[in-house]
Amino acid sequence: MTQQDPAPHGSNMGIDGQALWSDLMETARYGGTPKGGVRRLTLTAEDRQVRDWFARTCRALGCTVTHDSMGNQFARRPGQDDSLPPITIGSHLDTQPTGGRYDGILGVMAGLSVLRALNRAGYVTRHPIEVINWTNEEGARFTPPMMCSGVFAGVFAEQAVLDKRDRAGIRFGDELEAIGYRGDEPCGQHPVTAYFELHIEQGPILEAESRTIGIVTGVQGARWYEVTVRGRDAHAGSTPMPLRHDALLGAARMIEAVSQVACRHAPTAVGTVGLIESHPNSSNVVPGEVFFTIDIRDPDDAVVERMEAELYGQLPEIARRSNVEFEIVKVWDAPAVHFDPDCIRMVEVAAAESGHDARRIVSGPGHDAAYMARVAPTAMIFVPCRDGLSHNEAESITEHDATAGADVLLRAVIRADATFSAGA
Amino acid sequence: MTQQDPAPHGSNMGIDGQALWSDLMETARYGGTPKGGVRRLTLTAEDRQVRDWFARTCRALGCTVTHDSMGNQFARRPGQDDSLPPITIGSHLDTQPTGGRYDGILGVMAGLSVLRALNRAGYVTRHPIEVINWTNEEGARFTPPMMCSGVFAGVFAEQAVLDKRDRAGIRFGDELEAIGYRGDEPCGQHPVTAYFELHIEQGPILEAESRTIGIVTGVQGARWYEVTVRGRDAHAGSTPMPLRHDALLGAARMIEAVSQVACRHAPTAVGTVGLIESHPNSSNVVPGEVFFTIDIRDPDDAVVERMEAELYGQLPEIARRSNVEFEIVKVWDAPAVHFDPDCIRMVEVAAAESGHDARRIVSGPGHDAAYMARVAPTAMIFVPCRDGLSHNEAESITEHDATAGADVLLRAVIRADATFSAGA
Repeated sequence: MTQQDPAPHGSNMGIDGQALWSDLMETARYGGTPKGGVRRLTLTAEDRQVRDWFARTCRALGCTVTHDSMGNQFARRPGQDDSLPPITIGSHLDTQPTGGRYDGILGVMAGLSVLRALNRAGYVTRHPIEVINWTNEEGARFTPPMMCSGVFAGVFAEQAVLDKRDRAGIRFGDELEAIGYRGDEPCGQHPVTAYFELHIEQGPILEAESRTIGIVTGVQGARWYEVTVRGRDAHAGSTPMPLRHDALLGAARMIEAVSQVACRHAPTAVGTVGLIESHPNSSNVVPGEVFFTIDIRDPDDAVVERMEAELYGQLPEIARRSNVEFEIVKVWDAPAVHFDPDCIRMVEVAAAESGHDARRIVSGPGHDAAYMARVAPTAMIFVPCRDGLSHNEAESITEHDATAGADVLLRAVIRADATFSAGA
Repeated sequence: MTQQDPAPHGSNMGIDGQALWSDLMETARYGGTPKGGVRRLTLTAEDRQVRDWFARTCRALGCTVTHDSMGNQFARRPGQDDSLPPITIGSHLDTQPTGGRYDGILGVMAGLSVLRALNRAGYVTRHPIEVINWTNEEGARFTPPMMCSGVFAGVFAEQAVLDKRDRAGIRFGDELEAIGYRGDEPCGQHPVTAYFELHIEQGPILEAESRTIGIVTGVQGARWYEVTVRGRDAHAGSTPMPLRHDALLGAARMIEAVSQVACRHAPTAVGTVGLIESHPNSSNVVPGEVFFTIDIRDPDDAVVERMEAELYGQLPEIARRSNVEFEIVKVWDAPAVHFDPDCIRMVEVAAAESGHDARRIVSGPGHDAAYMARVAPTAMIFVPCRDGLSHNEAESITEHDATAGADVLLRAVIRADATFSAGA
C-alpha cells in the first residue's frame, strides 16, 4: 500500500454538527429514561424502533439498506467502483440497562453525518461507503458483548449465538426473528476494505489532558467468567452459623478477591463483578445458590493471564472456608488488539489536519472494531466524555467534541478511500 | 386460673394420621415444584387455591369459615357456649419462594385433624374451636413476616400493611382484593381465649436428641434491616480501580461484617443477608446501587442490641473505605417472646400423656404465635424436621412425628378448653 496524498478534503465539505446532535437527541427517545439516559437492550421493541429509524434515515440519504443473518445493518452509499469492497464506518445502537445517549450511538450517527457531508459536497468516493449498526455490542442482555461483529469476524459460531438465552430464558434467535431483523445475507460474507469507528472514550484520560481526539491504537485484553456458588437454603432464624452453607457469604468473599487481584496489578488492570443473582433471595433464608460474573482486563495479555491464575488459585480456598461449592466458566476471552498501523496513521493525519489536540490511546472497553480488526484494516477515534463516565444514564459529551470526532472520521475515511484503492 | 383436671382424652379420640398426611400431600400440589417443594408466595394464585381448599374442607367438617380484613381465615367449630371466645389453633399456608411442604402448613392441617378427631368422637367442647390460616407469615413477598397476625395483635397498622409493595411494586391491598380475600370483619376484632400452634422445629435440636416433641417456651428476638449502598455506575473496562465507587464491593464487605458480628456472639446468635439486588446488574458495569437485607437474632434481647450496635459501628467505616454511601433502615424489631406459663404447662402435660419424648425449647424462627402471645395465652409445639432443614424444597418430616405433634395439640386444646372455661 502506498501512502500517497488522498483526494483533498475540500473546503466545501464539512460535518453538519447540528444535524449530528439532532440525530443523537432524536434517537435517545427510543428507550429514553426519566433520568435522561437510554435503556435499549438488544432485540427489544426499542431496539427495533431505532433500527427502523436508522434504515429510514439512511434511505432518505440515498443509501441501500440491508441486514444480514445476525441483524447487523449496512447502509451503502455507492462509489465510483461498486466492485470494490466498501470503506466502512460502524458502531452500535443498543445500550446498557441504564446506559447513556452516546456509547455506540455516536459512532453510527457520525457515520450518517459523513454521508451527509459527502452528499452535500457531491463527492463521489472510489469505494462504496457503508455505515454499519452492529447487533448486541453491549452483551448486557445476551452474553458475550460484541456478539454479532464477533460472528461477522468468525470469532463466534452463528448457530451458537442464535441459541444464546437471556437471563429470562428467551432465545436470541427467536427475538431476532420477532423484531424482523434476521436477514438472508449470511453474516460475515460481506467483504470490507477498511473499518473506522468513532466512540466516546468511556474513561478519564482525554478530559484530564484537555484533548479532543484520541487516536486509538488498540484494545486491552479482557476475559469474562460466570461463577456459580452452591450452598444450601436454610432458615435464617434457626440455622447455627457453623452449620451454614451460605452461598452469598462465599460469593461476597470472592467479590473481594476479584477486587484485590486487580488492585495488585495496578495501575492498568481492572476487575469487576457487575452482575449477581442470589437464590432464593428472601430475607429469611440463608442463600443456597449465587450466580455472578467476573470481568478482568489489562492492556497486556500476560497480566490478564496472571490475574486469571491468581483467581483460579484463590477461589477454591475461599469456597472451602465458606463451606460452599463453586464452579467457574470462562465465557469470553478477548486478547489485546493492535489496530492497523496504516489506519492509525490515517486517523492521526486526519486529526492533525483538523487542528484538534490529539494523543494516541489504548481502549479500555472492547468495541466492535476489536473484532473487525481481524478481517479488515481497522482503527478507532475517541472523543472525551464528562468525568470519564459511561454505562451510566449521566453519560455526557459536548456537541463540539462530537462534531470534531465526526470531522476526523470524515477525513480518515476520505484518506482511506484514496489510499486503499491506490494500493488495491 | 385453676389447673383442674380437664375433660379426659377419651380412648376413642385420636388423630387420624393418614388423613393428616393426605391433607399435607394434597395441598402441596398448589405451587408444587419439580423438586418436591412448594412455591406459594402470599396472595398469589397458588395462595388463593390453597385458601379455597381450606375453606371448602373446613365447611365439609361442619365449620363456619370467615376471613377478616387482612385475609386471615377462621374456621369455627361450635362449642357448648358460643359466647365464649374460641380456643384457637393456627399457622400459615404461604411459603418461601423455594419452600417445603410443612413449614406453617403442618400447623393448619393439624388443626383440621383436631376437628376431625372431635367430630369422630362426637366431642363437644365448651368453647368454640377455631382453626386459623394467617396471611403472609413468611414475609418473603411483602415485608415484614408474620404480617397479618401482627395486624391482628395491633403490632402493625392495617393501612400501612395494605400499602406495602412487593419488589415488583405491586401493592398488598390490591393483591388481597384481587384474590378475593379482603373480608368485612376488621382484623383484630376477634376475641380469643387461647392460641396453640404446632410447627416443625426448623432447627437441628430435636432430631439430634431423638425427641419427638418440643415444648416451645418462647421465640428469640429478631431484627431486620434494609440496606441501600450507593456508588456510581461506570464502565467495567475503563474505570481505574482507585476511581471506582463500586456498590457491590461495598455490599460484599458488609455481608462479611454481618457474618462476623453473629459469629462473635456464638453459639446462639445468627446473622443473615438473605436478599440482594444489584443495579444495573450488567457484567460490563461497575454496580452503582445495591440493596440488601440483614436479619439478626438471639434469644437474649441484650445480645441483639449489642449486635445492632456493632453493625451500626462497622458499616460506616466499610462504606468509607469502599468509596460508597449507604443507608440502613430497621424494618422489623421483634423482641424475644415468652409464652404463657399455663399454656406451656398444658403442652407439657399433653406431651407426657402422649408418651412421646419431649423437651422445652426456644424457637429460632419467628411464628404467628409470637404476636398472638400479645393478645391471648399462647404456646407452641415443635416436631423435628430432617437435618433441621427448612425454607428449602428438601424440607422433610415423618408421618409419625406429624401425627404425634397433632396428638399433643389435640390434648393441649382439650385441656385448655376445660381449664380456661373453669377459670373464666
